[in-house]
Formats: sequence, C-alpha cells, structure tokens
Amino acid sequence: MNNFVYDIPTKVYFGENQLKNLGPELKKFGTRVLMTYGGGSIKKIGLYDKVVKEIKDAGLELFELSGIEPNPRIDSVREGARICKEKNIDVLLAVGGGSTIDATKFMAAGAFVEHDPWEFFVSDAPIEKALPIVSILTLSATGSEMDAGGVISNPETQDKYGRLARPLIPAVSFLDPTNTYSVSPYQTACGAADIMSHILEVYFNMDQDLYMLDCFMEGLMKTVIKYTPIAIKDPTNYEARANLMWTSSWAINGFVNGGKNQAWSCHPIEHEVSAIYDITHGLGLAILTPRWMEYCLDETNVSKYVQFGINVFGIDASLPPMDIAKEAIKRLSDFFFNTLQLTSNFTDLNIDETNFEIMAKKSCEDSILEGFKPLNQKDIKKIYEMCL
Amino acid sequence: MNNFVYDIPTKVYFGENQLKNLGPELKKFGTRVLMTYGGGSIKKIGLYDKVVKEIKDAGLELFELSGIEPNPRIDSVREGARICKEKNIDVLLAVGGGSTIDATKFMAAGAFVEHDPWEFFVSDAPIEKALPIVSILTLSATGSEMDAGGVISNPETQDKYGRLARPLIPAVSFLDPTNTYSVSPYQTACGAADIMSHILEVYFNMDQDLYMLDCFMEGLMKTVIKYTPIAIKDPTNYEARANLMWTSSWAINGFVNGGKNQAWSCHPIEHEVSAIYDITHGLGLAILTPRWMEYCLDETNVSKYVQFGINVFGIDASLPPMDIAKEAIKRLSDFFFNTLQLTSNFTDLNIDETNFEIMAKKSCEDSILEGFKPLNQKDIKKIYEMCL
Repeated sequence: MNNFVYDIPTKVYFGENQLKNLGPELKKFGTRVLMTYGGGSIKKIGLYDKVVKEIKDAGLELFELSGIEPNPRIDSVREGARICKEKNIDVLLAVGGGSTIDATKFMAAGAFVEHDPWEFFVSDAPIEKALPIVSILTLSATGSEMDAGGVISNPETQDKYGRLARPLIPAVSFLDPTNTYSVSPYQTACGAADIMSHILEVYFNMDQDLYMLDCFMEGLMKTVIKYTPIAIKDPTNYEARANLMWTSSWAINGFVNGGKNQAWSCHPIEHEVSAIYDITHGLGLAILTPRWMEYCLDETNVSKYVQFGINVFGIDASLPPMDIAKEAIKRLSDFFFNTLQLTSNFTDLNIDETNFEIMAKKSCEDSILEGFKPLNQKDIKKIYEMCL
Repeated sequence: MNNFVYDIPTKVYFGENQLKNLGPELKKFGTRVLMTYGGGSIKKIGLYDKVVKEIKDAGLELFELSGIEPNPRIDSVREGARICKEKNIDVLLAVGGGSTIDATKFMAAGAFVEHDPWEFFVSDAPIEKALPIVSILTLSATGSEMDAGGVISNPETQDKYGRLARPLIPAVSFLDPTNTYSVSPYQTACGAADIMSHILEVYFNMDQDLYMLDCFMEGLMKTVIKYTPIAIKDPTNYEARANLMWTSSWAINGFVNGGKNQAWSCHPIEHEVSAIYDITHGLGLAILTPRWMEYCLDETNVSKYVQFGINVFGIDASLPPMDIAKEAIKRLSDFFFNTLQLTSNFTDLNIDETNFEIMAKKSCEDSILEGFKPLNQKDIKKIYEMCL
C-alpha cells in the first residue's frame, strides 16, 4: 500500500440557484473576468444571461471567449491565453462541460508563459502557476470541474494530449443539476461512459490498496448504472442529474486513487481514436472498455473482475471466477450498448483499420502502455481490431 | 434534495514516514509552534521524539502543552489559549487522538478572544478566526483531523458541549496508520463505535438525498465491520489500521452529509452520559445506538433499516421489512458487544437511573431533540432505561 497526499481544494456550490454566490467568489480574485464557453448551448438554456447578470451586478468587468470545441483545440487555448495577457485578466470563468473547462485551464496557465501553450503538451513545459479558475458545469462527464487535468487536441498534427498540473485545479465550481437537463440522451450516455471509465481505470488494479476506496468506487459505478437510464428517459429528473453530477466529480478528483499510482489504459488508447476521427470521447471509451477488459482478463487478474461483477452487478458469487468475469464484461457491454443505446463498434462510425498501426504506436508512445496489464503496440492494435 | 456547499480544505499526508513534510508545512504558518498532546503515550511509541526532531531540524521554536485529557476539559483549552497569547504562537500542532485535536481547536480560537473560551459553548460566542492547526493523528475515531468540530467538557458544571466553526478545520493532518499500532483493543473498538455512529447519524435520515452518498456510507460501515476485528486481533496490521484511519476522517468531514441538514441524535444523548460518568465516548455510543435504533423503528421509517440491513450486513432482501430491520439492529449489537467485546449495558459500568431525568432534559435542551425521529425528554429517558 503506497503513501499518498490528499489535497483537493475546490470549493463546490451544489444545487439550484447558487449563482448568487458567483459574484462574491469571482471578486475574491479580482475584477477582470474572462468568461469562456462553447457553441452557444448556454445561451439556449438561459444560463448565459444569468451568469452575465451576476457578473455585472457584482460590478466586475467581463470579457468573453466563445466557440470552444468538443475535443477542444490548441488554437482556442492560444486565443484565450492571448486575451488573458492583453486584457490583464484576473480570473477565468469556464461555463460548459469538460471541453470548455479543460481548454480554460491551459489558457490560465498560458497567461503566465511566453511560449506557445502547445509546449505544455509536447515538451512538458512547466506549469508553475495559472490564473484562478471558476467553473459552472453543464455536463456530467469529465470531472474537470474538480481535478488538475485537461486534454487538448491539435488537428494539424492529429495529436491529442493530456496534462496534469496542480495550479489547474478550479478554485470554485458551481454544480447545478438543472444545467444538465438539456443534455441529450446521447451526450448523457457518453458522459456516463466517461465517468465509468474514470473509475474503471483506477479500480482495475492488482495493487493492494484501501478497501474503503474500492467500496466507494463500486458505489459510484452503481450510481451511474442506476441513474443514467433515468436521466435519459426523464431528462429533468433532478435526483438522477444530481447523482450523476456529483459522481462525475468524485470519479476523478483524486480521492479514489488513494495510493494507487497505476497509469491509465483506455484513455490513452481512446485519445488516438478521437484525435483522428473526432468522435465523442465517451463513446470511444464505451466501445473500447469492454474489449480492453476482455483482452486483459487472465488467471492472474480474474479476482478483480470477480469483485467488480459481484459488487457492482450483483452476479452470483457462487459461480466459477472466469464465468463471473465474463458475465461482468457482458453486463458492462449491455449497459453501454443496450441500455444506453451507444454505438457498439468502430465500423458503424466509419472507422476502419487504416490508422490502427499508427494509433497503437502513438498510444503506447512506441513502448509499453503500463497499467492494469502492460500493453505493447501489438496488443493495442488487437484491441482496436476487436472494436470493428 | 437540499443544496449544499462542499469545502474541505485539509491537506492530508497519508502513510508511513511522511513526517519529513512536517517542518515545511509548519513553516508556511510561521516559526513559533505550540505542540499539544495527552498523557504521554506519544512518548512511549517514539512519536514525540520524531516530531520534536523535525521541528528542531526545521529551525522552528517549540512550545509544549501536555496532559490533555480524554473527554478534554475546558481548563486545558484555557491554558492553551493563554500560552498562544503569551508566547505569540503562529501555529498549533496537535499530536494525539480526537481529544487532543478537539481541545487544540478551541485553543486556536481562544487565542483571538479576550473572553473565557467556555463562552464558545455556553453563549455561542463567535469563532471568526483561529490560529492554523496541524494534526498528527494517533487514534482512528473522532475524525477531528479533518472536520470543523470539537467537544469540550466542564467537570465543574458536568456539561459537555460540541461546537462547529469553519476556522477550526485543521489545515494539514498527518495520518500514519502505524501511529495507531499501539492502540489497545478496547480503544480500537471504542473508536470503531464512534466512526459507526458518525455515519449512522447521517445515514438514518428519511430525507431524499444523494444515493451515491448512501452507497459511500455503506462502504465506510462495511470497512469498519471488516477491519476492526482484524486490527484488534493483529494490532500491527497496516491494511486494517489504514482502512480504519481514512474511514474515520471521511465519516465526519462533511462529504457524506450532502444536502442533509438533519441534527444528530445519539451524540447529544451520549454526551450527557460521558459528561457525568467520564466513560469513553465511543463506548457510550455503542451501548446507546442499537437501543436508539430499536426505539425509533416504526412503519414510516422501516425502509431505511431495510436498506441498512441489506447493503451493510447482507441480510436476505426477501424477508419481511420489519424482520430485516430487527435483524439489522441485532447484527449491529452483535458487532459491538460480541465481535468487539464492548460492555453492552450501563449497569456493568455502574451507571444507574439516578441521573437519567436530568441527562434526558439536558440532551434535548428541555425541548425536542430533532433528528431521524424527534425525541422528547421522556423518549430519551426511555432510551437510557433500555441501556440498563
């Protein structure tokens, strides 16, 4: 069991009508606010107007950067960093889902450096400080609202890289489940797959660690399985949206890690898919995860699958371990592809094997992808092929 | 489902040999450190010497206050607050269990006021600031290492009061499971009962709240039930001590509350017992909790008992609800009194009905004790009588 440091400083306002606290929270950091958002869905749901009103009422100066893409691009980051410098921004306010928050994180860091923000990803340029970030979440998925990471794409090079740095953790996040009422069934399902994957990347680990954290992860997964179908069927079900929202934050804010230092597997494998084909990250994860589980399963690690199958899906504990493991994978597939109605394979997304070689090579950085089970380029290519 | 604000700033160093971080963490707050501790057990286990060495090596000035009692007394708080003022202390370092940390919290607040610190309890004197607190935990029980509260006794008046205030949350806590290796089977059991009670006070609630938090609480309780017997039988079992330690913090740091604002029941009822008879708080809770559950059970709330029985103790879900509820109470009693071998009644502790009337009156403050089920003075007296 490894040591760890627990240090999650994000303050969260959870629930409806908490925006009255937005002005006072922003003011703690200064007066010049750069508000970032995506394609305008926050205007459709009326959130934009509410946020602008709070900022104006607080007497703050508002700057805006809109148009941040799903699978957010380095160009948006560059533009945001430029505005932060030019306008002497004091605090960034990201209003949106993980893409907006992720991009905003690197704008906040980019404000303090002279080099191109892409250097954060390709040459591991230090991130020693960042402007403070406040977020208003509109999609339960990435957990970016309470974590230190973000993923940015570069369409020119077909690269998609993640980066973690402590100064990127949002200082304050507003989690209002009603802001996710308008999220489509498809995006709700993709968000659920993303949350499940965040948990599974940590849960599937053969290192001895804290049982209490495994119990917590099982509870989070049961929550996703219980409430995603409800949120899809009844999009304004507060209970369902609230459970998914708080679960998305806790799946990835670092608490579940404990002393587990294991690298992730499905996320790097998926990033190469969405880097080239621009599919929704959660959909890529839904397709890949059950195949990855199937590919990795062997006699040495079956016990973890058994624990998962019994505690999350309630599979009969008296069955032989391999049967429980296979049934657990089947139940997870059923959840993604039948219950949530997500596309179950690459072929239906017009993804063929053309790029599998290069994608596999990139995802393991031409070496070994360490993780639950070490995977080399050939292994990863086989997992891609299982997804056809 | 109520709104809530999540804001837990404590940084935790979890695991062995983390004390190298103590000096740098203390230094962030200044150079003059008041170290507080209890009756000397930290000297026996060698922790005192290690801590002093780190403080000296960091070039900090060390002051000490020892002798803080179990069920810590207001006189210790008074003395600590006096030293803080007289010696211009910058930061308090509590080394011990919940009693030491609780007392230290009110010293830290007392440093900023002219009045007697007992006013924090009897006249709700404001706690607007407190000196920063660092803790090194040696007992898994109260959760004081990561929460905003503390309980102080006044033997002169036979009063025991709790108080919550945000400035009292420790800034940094060191949780090294090996520091609990020397905790006796009895104190380990009492600590487990305290942890269970912290969870049950929140879990037993008929308000609709987040399912994901109920799952988490069930996982915490399963952890206590799984690992306390192991820690008692094998006191240097790292896995058991680590699970109990991190569980004790998360049982009460506020996360499990979500939007539940319900007042607690067993804690105020127990405080009147230990205020007069100076028994270990956790033992009082172990004796009271199953009786409280039995007394409160009715047709309107049986569903909560059923959820508890099935999810925590694995009781057959096909049984009639009332049977599951009663079996759940029996299992909890068995855990406390058979598995953990705690004394099961007041009589064996030489507590008779002499003071029940006044204890009941005080615990509901001559009114109604709101909570899972509202209890008046007569109800509470009956619960005390069930404990004979």
